[in-house]
Amino acid sequence: MDYEKFFTERLDALKRVGDYRVFAELERCAGDFPRARRHVGDAVEDVTVWCSNDYMGMGQHPEVLYAMQEAIAQHGAGAGGTRNISGTNHLHVLLERELADLHGKEAALIFTSGYVANMTALATLASRLPGCIVYSDALNHNSMIEGLRHSRAEKRIFKHNDPADLDRLLAADDPERPKLVMFESVYSMDGDVAPLDALLTVCESHGAFSYLDEVHAVGMYGARGGGIAERDGVMDRVGVIQGTLAKGFGVIGGYVAASAATVDFIRSFGNGFIFTTALPPAIAAGALTSVRIIKNEPGLRARHQERAATLKAKLRAAGLPVMPSESHVVPVLVGDPVACRRASDLLMERHAIYVQPINYPTVPHGTERLRLTPTPYHTDAQMDRLIEGLLDVWRLLDLSAAA
Amino acid sequence: MDYEKFFTERLDALKRVGDYRVFAELERCAGDFPRARRHVGDAVEDVTVWCSNDYMGMGQHPEVLYAMQEAIAQHGAGAGGTRNISGTNHLHVLLERELADLHGKEAALIFTSGYVANMTALATLASRLPGCIVYSDALNHNSMIEGLRHSRAEKRIFKHNDPADLDRLLAADDPERPKLVMFESVYSMDGDVAPLDALLTVCESHGAFSYLDEVHAVGMYGARGGGIAERDGVMDRVGVIQGTLAKGFGVIGGYVAASAATVDFIRSFGNGFIFTTALPPAIAAGALTSVRIIKNEPGLRARHQERAATLKAKLRAAGLPVMPSESHVVPVLVGDPVACRRASDLLMERHAIYVQPINYPTVPHGTERLRLTPTPYHTDAQMDRLIEGLLDVWRLLDLSAAA
Repeated sequence: MDYEKFFTERLDALKRVGDYRVFAELERCAGDFPRARRHVGDAVEDVTVWCSNDYMGMGQHPEVLYAMQEAIAQHGAGAGGTRNISGTNHLHVLLERELADLHGKEAALIFTSGYVANMTALATLASRLPGCIVYSDALNHNSMIEGLRHSRAEKRIFKHNDPADLDRLLAADDPERPKLVMFESVYSMDGDVAPLDALLTVCESHGAFSYLDEVHAVGMYGARGGGIAERDGVMDRVGVIQGTLAKGFGVIGGYVAASAATVDFIRSFGNGFIFTTALPPAIAAGALTSVRIIKNEPGLRARHQERAATLKAKLRAAGLPVMPSESHVVPVLVGDPVACRRASDLLMERHAIYVQPINYPTVPHGTERLRLTPTPYHTDAQMDRLIEGLLDVWRLLDLSAAA
Repeated sequence: MDYEKFFTERLDALKRVGDYRVFAELERCAGDFPRARRHVGDAVEDVTVWCSNDYMGMGQHPEVLYAMQEAIAQHGAGAGGTRNISGTNHLHVLLERELADLHGKEAALIFTSGYVANMTALATLASRLPGCIVYSDALNHNSMIEGLRHSRAEKRIFKHNDPADLDRLLAADDPERPKLVMFESVYSMDGDVAPLDALLTVCESHGAFSYLDEVHAVGMYGARGGGIAERDGVMDRVGVIQGTLAKGFGVIGGYVAASAATVDFIRSFGNGFIFTTALPPAIAAGALTSVRIIKNEPGLRARHQERAATLKAKLRAAGLPVMPSESHVVPVLVGDPVACRRASDLLMERHAIYVQPINYPTVPHGTERLRLTPTPYHTDAQMDRLIEGLLDVWRLLDLSAAA
């Protein structure tokens, strides 16, 4: 077989349908977020970033940066090994305690990413609970699906955010078999929020273990930033709360928080945890500082929500097709991969505004969109310039105003 | 089902057989490696680390630390998104170019860890090459096995480091089907080295695509630290070279280097790459600096090899059961999980020497060992104290001198 030819043909096919991805090459500027510099060949230009997952701008917080620099000076670059083989540093232990406290759980465990946290924790639980059946929300994101797939457990898909459908599926199965129900709180591409209380009530009535992904909510919802489960007062009813240190907290890494036995089980049997180098001490230091700040900064969360509400109102007032969203995620519908990519290019070329096109496989075909993520640092003036740019591009491409 | 009870029982079973892992809680001390501080409850004591994967001590190199601190000051904490959605930073692009150059390949792609690099690249290639058969060395480590398992491709296991057995298996299959052969260069638990030229000759004669894991070799072998494939002059014959930024280079992260089309294919279809936040710019800056230094420091590699040879000679002279190893990895056989853990504890308590016991599932039952990793920074005096400690523990536990 001609492997080169095969790879090239598959890439050409992606290009033909408009799903080939070109990465914007940025230089983030600490202290000047959401402004950044963009490299195009040898040229460098200023842009405003409207699609970052550094939702709260914590990636430029001076105390976070100072903590990281200090940890590098004291402890060096890397962790020096896997968690088991010389890689556990004092800062990892402190961070895990802080995260357990954030979610009101006995213990927490950090991973190199949220993706690895889901992949590892779900694969471990679903494959090792004997005869486990997994019930998965229809719109769960990729890392959860991959974890389930990797476990090879039997699965059922329940309708998105639909407790009645989940109930129906659970009732149809053998009551004696272990059951794992997995869902998210904030769904990141549409910005809708799960009915946690109702879903958990269904889990409880069937003796199912619940696994909640809060990666697009931690740091941003709840009195201390514990997520939607904290906001809704249901943290103690969730089996595993999974989160990320990369988005609301602005650094990198993922984690699970749960009972001591659950966390120790994942720690002891999760291959994606055991066989990988631990996060650098400086990453743990930055995340630890970020979580501590976020816990005590409800004002930042209020400002974040206000910015999102203001942007949605401005988009609607301008007649732009903002999709329904209950959260800080603000998707604007395009509905075609080629037009979506073109709209993004034109915003960059003509307006120095950077919004990545979101195409398949991240969202279904036909729902391609520009996904805006206003942060506490996006100003009214920047919003007005964004809307001006969008209206210009919508005119040029003759796009629809209907969401 | 009582989930808590199930988890607790499984953990108790691990404890009974001696396979329950207790992590040593360390504070690495930049500038004083391999010395570290160890936390036990509220107490802190000094220890000498003999089991770090920071093989070359690059995790404390002043230029690496400076590059990271500068990048934090300029670009902040996290990358701000996935590679596709605002997370590609200029430093990622520079690092990928540097790694492609290191391995003499057209392109490279970085991942959040070496584990994710293997898992993603292997799962992507093996699942998307239609009808692909994968041939896997019997001792390949976990991330490769998990990638293969995740792909659900048909598999064949060839005898460890045995080109004749690989040849036999390849010859028995349909010549028209795509074939992926995966193996490591340095096997990290035994320290033996694969016969790359012979294995690649077999791959070539059957039109198989070769995938080589060099995580325990990059930075440490070859004129510029390109690994065993560079040392043996065969880099251009390997389909994918996979490496890590965490061990020889002392930071964190993993990568693949290959032809432009191969790398673009993995970049475009690899879920574990697409759906995860990019490495922080500071991590890329540290790794970039480390790779550049390592390329131009053959003296560090010579010192590393000399230290390993000296340690092996000293262990043999002392009558300790050092296992055969062709590399910088120096395993000392214990052969029992409880004794292995006990030996490690006694070394720590009585001699302030930290060597983690290596038990199942990292190595097979009955081959439990203390795995020593001498670095360029371990002195003769530290080696002599280590041997004194080992002899004391061997006496106390009445352990065998036979490897």
